[in-house]
Amino acid sequence: MKIAIAQLNPTIGYLAHNAQQILAAAQQAVAQGSRLMLTPELSLCGYPPRDLLMQPAFVAEMAATLMQLAQDLPPQLAVLVGTVVVNDRSTRIGGKPLFNSTALLHNGEIQQLFHKRLLPTYDVFDDNRYFEPGLESHSFWLDGVKIGVTICEDLWNDENFWGKRNYRVDPLAELAEQSVDLIVNLSGSPYTANKQELREAMLRQATQTYGQPIVYVNQVGGNDDLIFDGNSVGFDRQGQLVCRAQAFDTDLIYVDFEPAQRDLQLGSIAPQPESTEAEIWQALVLGLRDYVRKCGFSKVVLGLSGGIDSALVATIATAAIGPEQVLGVLMPSPYSSDHSVADALELAKNLGIQTQSLPIGNLMSTYDHTFAELFAGSDFGLAEENIQSRIRGNLLMAISNKFGHLLISTGNKSEMAVGYCTLYGDMNGGLAAIADVPKTRVYSICRWLNAGGWRPASNPDLPEVIPANVLTKAPSAELKPGQVDQDSLPPYEVLDDILCQFITQHKAPAEIVASGHEVNTVDRVIKLVTRAEFKRKQAPPGLKITDRAFGTGWRMPIASQWLPTSTQSSHYQATQPSALTT
Amino acid sequence: MKIAIAQLNPTIGYLAHNAQQILAAAQQAVAQGSRLMLTPELSLCGYPPRDLLMQPAFVAEMAATLMQLAQDLPPQLAVLVGTVVVNDRSTRIGGKPLFNSTALLHNGEIQQLFHKRLLPTYDVFDDNRYFEPGLESHSFWLDGVKIGVTICEDLWNDENFWGKRNYRVDPLAELAEQSVDLIVNLSGSPYTANKQELREAMLRQATQTYGQPIVYVNQVGGNDDLIFDGNSVGFDRQGQLVCRAQAFDTDLIYVDFEPAQRDLQLGSIAPQPESTEAEIWQALVLGLRDYVRKCGFSKVVLGLSGGIDSALVATIATAAIGPEQVLGVLMPSPYSSDHSVADALELAKNLGIQTQSLPIGNLMSTYDHTFAELFAGSDFGLAEENIQSRIRGNLLMAISNKFGHLLISTGNKSEMAVGYCTLYGDMNGGLAAIADVPKTRVYSICRWLNAGGWRPASNPDLPEVIPANVLTKAPSAELKPGQVDQDSLPPYEVLDDILCQFITQHKAPAEIVASGHEVNTVDRVIKLVTRAEFKRKQAPPGLKITDRAFGTGWRMPIASQWLPTSTQSSHYQATQPSALTT
Repeated sequence: MKIAIAQLNPTIGYLAHNAQQILAAAQQAVAQGSRLMLTPELSLCGYPPRDLLMQPAFVAEMAATLMQLAQDLPPQLAVLVGTVVVNDRSTRIGGKPLFNSTALLHNGEIQQLFHKRLLPTYDVFDDNRYFEPGLESHSFWLDGVKIGVTICEDLWNDENFWGKRNYRVDPLAELAEQSVDLIVNLSGSPYTANKQELREAMLRQATQTYGQPIVYVNQVGGNDDLIFDGNSVGFDRQGQLVCRAQAFDTDLIYVDFEPAQRDLQLGSIAPQPESTEAEIWQALVLGLRDYVRKCGFSKVVLGLSGGIDSALVATIATAAIGPEQVLGVLMPSPYSSDHSVADALELAKNLGIQTQSLPIGNLMSTYDHTFAELFAGSDFGLAEENIQSRIRGNLLMAISNKFGHLLISTGNKSEMAVGYCTLYGDMNGGLAAIADVPKTRVYSICRWLNAGGWRPASNPDLPEVIPANVLTKAPSAELKPGQVDQDSLPPYEVLDDILCQFITQHKAPAEIVASGHEVNTVDRVIKLVTRAEFKRKQAPPGLKITDRAFGTGWRMPIASQWLPTSTQSSHYQATQPSALTT
Repeated sequence: MKIAIAQLNPTIGYLAHNAQQILAAAQQAVAQGSRLMLTPELSLCGYPPRDLLMQPAFVAEMAATLMQLAQDLPPQLAVLVGTVVVNDRSTRIGGKPLFNSTALLHNGEIQQLFHKRLLPTYDVFDDNRYFEPGLESHSFWLDGVKIGVTICEDLWNDENFWGKRNYRVDPLAELAEQSVDLIVNLSGSPYTANKQELREAMLRQATQTYGQPIVYVNQVGGNDDLIFDGNSVGFDRQGQLVCRAQAFDTDLIYVDFEPAQRDLQLGSIAPQPESTEAEIWQALVLGLRDYVRKCGFSKVVLGLSGGIDSALVATIATAAIGPEQVLGVLMPSPYSSDHSVADALELAKNLGIQTQSLPIGNLMSTYDHTFAELFAGSDFGLAEENIQSRIRGNLLMAISNKFGHLLISTGNKSEMAVGYCTLYGDMNGGLAAIADVPKTRVYSICRWLNAGGWRPASNPDLPEVIPANVLTKAPSAELKPGQVDQDSLPPYEVLDDILCQFITQHKAPAEIVASGHEVNTVDRVIKLVTRAEFKRKQAPPGLKITDRAFGTGWRMPIASQWLPTSTQSSHYQATQPSALTT
């Protein structure tokens, strides 16, 4: 039995378009002799649809589209489509109004519905906000093969693999008890660095544990801050990888289930990216391209400072949508070094993108003049530095508004973490392309690029994409004479390690100190992180590539007085209480 | 038995401070002869602590603080404190790592723990992200009285009241079966307009249904976008209101439980605000004051345009933190009308706040000059309008940065909904004071103010706070000559009604048209709302006063192609499918 794996890239809420994609894939699959086609989780509306699910008209339209699709699909092909289904009993017995479901479409009809059982409510996931969990796992028969259906998180509760249970029930174990021949999984599993390795190790163990083959199909494409990497795979009952679709692109691959052996046959296995840098690069290129495209833009604009962050983002944008679609804007000030303009122009030449130069000296003087009286007697400081950044932000947005280019912001995760960025200035943009990429990783990706990772089609023999000077000079915001980042921040190797321990690993300051960092540095970094929450609140969506990004999965209070320090005095001491204070 | 209701205003994460507040209230309560004191949900850390709960150091510090507090409290007083408790079994049998709990502190020890059972995951609530639900409802004995303990949402599942079940279990019904004498409820229930009326109707019905008195204690104060209104109440077993604490302020009130009658006695009942306008006004004043205070600021700055939105926000700020703490900045342009400056100055004089004038004509010219070449041949349009708004945003942020004033933005909900506002311009600010107040409500609050709702202490006999001209002139952004809002938008009465139906009531366009609005207007408004998602994503926290605000409870995709229209062609039509598209 030939199974088609349709690794699709739906657009959130674009039901007609997504249905067309499923139909087109099905017609190809039938032409190849497939009997069954799998699509990703919620393939009809795209994952995650979020609060669109609160509009009854949206849910109704999805049901109507599903019905129509069932009629239009080739009748001989069984197709599993991800959709939402109304929970009719919710008002009577309690529970959420919808299920996150898989519909089995066959012979012109909706044959069966399967509901997602394990609903993730961590990180970026809010499944419990909308969905009632399915109470049982079910299967269907096709050509004498008993196929168990699971949805995404349903796979992610293998106690042996994780060393702990995440949920009380385990759909895999239940399907094994039902003696299914094959388990299929429809996923909308977002990318984080090296996650595919984890997924494949988990699937290997699951297939070995239960002696049942699994076919896992994942969504691909960028949806706001989330990038879905595809990487759909099949594992046979011995835990051997038998097929893999492409990473970071749509794909339609086939795998054969051999009834006699009750197992999947070896098929084609797409290679994985060659390194973590290559993988992140591909993720960011896809994420940027899809955000631009799905928002209805065709061109982007960004500020080119001559620094490494904007160099990387310009390169990502060029790879994503082509050099003709990218406009780099140079906005030198009297504090800009000579090399910053030269470096930016060299980069633009390498990439083949257009540039525009708008010096900001006159604007700075006019702001100075405007504030001459009010700021008289005060020193040049943060306010004046931010004015420069906000002038640039205003210029870029004016270009965006005038020409319809999407502004891409270029800040990295390290500076977003400690607030080394200007709200309404360099943070401006519709998308923050590298907001989840730590500065040390920005460097390693640029080194990987220069070592041959990527070259523009127009210039395949370029010795290096990122000008060498951009990689070697000291990072600087150039907002005052001679300024470098390390005046204000610890070296990025130190900073990024502290940030990772605090933000991703949730370590206490004392633990971070114990790992070998200076007390003062740790406390200062954590204070900066905590105090910068108000900036992150207003940041554009940033493409997520780590397990803990400052995006939809980061939900931190702003007006909070929790500030952990490495020398935290042991909790509160009762003092003479005053009257009840407001 | 005298019961103290401590309606506290904790600061999120400020454990030592919050514990001190509980201790201070307890000492007063003991002095008044109380036997039991109630505090709000999560009173030790403040509600909602959000992702601070993911830091083990935070949870550990809370446990240590609770232990210390148990020892410090007067031993003869039983105190119910809201705290989180580690779910020891989660890694073994699955489930979330914490409980949202109430600790009974008495005689120097933690006597008993009660876990929240119904965990809300709708609107702004993410309880399921952190907490495992308690599986049973429990009670404790004090002076021969059996007291059942519930936490917030545990009360909100009365099938008879709502006409439907929200959850499968009903803690109230279970406690009734256990024949408790009294039910207490610790809440962190955020304010929305007229919600207290709903709460009291629900509590009345619950006490009547089960014949058991209920004491409900709610948190008070502002935490980011959420305002907690206090309004703690007691209802006796006949469903009669027996006590009510103040709205929008801390309070410590007492209610007697009479063992012989097994019922609460009539106590003092604080009055409710006189009107919806009065109530919203108090909410916004509290929300602004607490955001400023809890973020560590003392002064605020805002732009004074002469329009009604900034007039209302300046008045709220003055009432919240005093006129000396408020700086209004006038930034007239060549397009500003004469009356806008006059109106702004008259308002400032009425309020007794300082003003600063920074005309922006020179800056506009310098931007024009900067863009002379690049924008040559194009018409004055949105780009030029936005430049003005962003110049003002830059000036205000510079003042904020220079003097340490918190910038308050002044946009209303109607313009946030349709995107009639400039990102990085007038949207700038640490807090959006009236972002959830529709324009028509802005008018009604201002009329209520002028009718005597509030007067500055310095000027109690002022005939009107908001200059009459501000209320009567046509609203205008004044970004080009002669511009008025109604050039671009339907009349605000029409707009606000369409917005309420679409945003709050989730109605389909056709239903909104059926209610009496023009097809073209409905479709245009919905398109504007849908297309403005990217602006709202980057908006500052806005004080929530409605059931559906654009804040933490609004989770909408940006790169989406769902655009409902009143003439929606019935779903997708299969066309000649092309190849699988990326």
